[in-house]
Amino acid sequence: MPEAERTQSYITELRRGSLVLAALGALRKPHYGYALLQVLQDKGIAIEANTLYPLLRRLESQGLLTSRWDTSETRPHKFYCISDNGKSVMTSLLDEWDKMSDQIAAICKEETP
Amino acid sequence: MPEAERTQSYITELRRGSLVLAALGALRKPHYGYALLQVLQDKGIAIEANTLYPLLRRLESQGLLTSRWDTSETRPHKFYCISDNGKSVMTSLLDEWDKMSDQIAAICKEETP
Repeated sequence: MPEAERTQSYITELRRGSLVLAALGALRKPHYGYALLQVLQDKGIAIEANTLYPLLRRLESQGLLTSRWDTSETRPHKFYCISDNGKSVMTSLLDEWDKMSDQIAAICKEETP
Repeated sequence: MPEAERTQSYITELRRGSLVLAALGALRKPHYGYALLQVLQDKGIAIEANTLYPLLRRLESQGLLTSRWDTSETRPHKFYCISDNGKSVMTSLLDEWDKMSDQIAAICKEETP
């Protein structure tokens, strides 16, 4: 595998775990799938529809999101919003994220003797 | 799946991607496998030997680590150290990490309207 491609695959691995956290965080405000995609992309999270949509369905089936259909427009949209369970998972993941950031900084940024 | 177990599985997913970064960072100084495990655990990275050792072999086979045998002790130890390629991947991953941290903070910590 060429060097750049390998680096990219590690970056993808690094980002993967944070997608749930990003989706939960963004859905503290209700969004339908495509709008959420735009919100995440605007914040620099380059996630694809075919990754995000199954993730939303999974999070809903796990009770971390709620959903409702908005049929007031010509085309109905399914709006997702974080649930109370989702908020509690998000809080745990954010705590973990902060801990990891400190650990990574301690390991990778300290001077080597 | 019970709630606590689900949260734990997301935490594991979150941590998984950062293990390569942590291992590369810690191996700016040479360590053999078990000593590296201790270093990481001391820093709060709860990685198991049966996750770390295959990871080290993979990173070496990809040219991100170098290794040498130290046979001066009764039991020979294989010491790993980050390579120049590994340093360049580590720098890219660290940049990405910092970007992700800013994005996660922007998405999950900002006030919802």
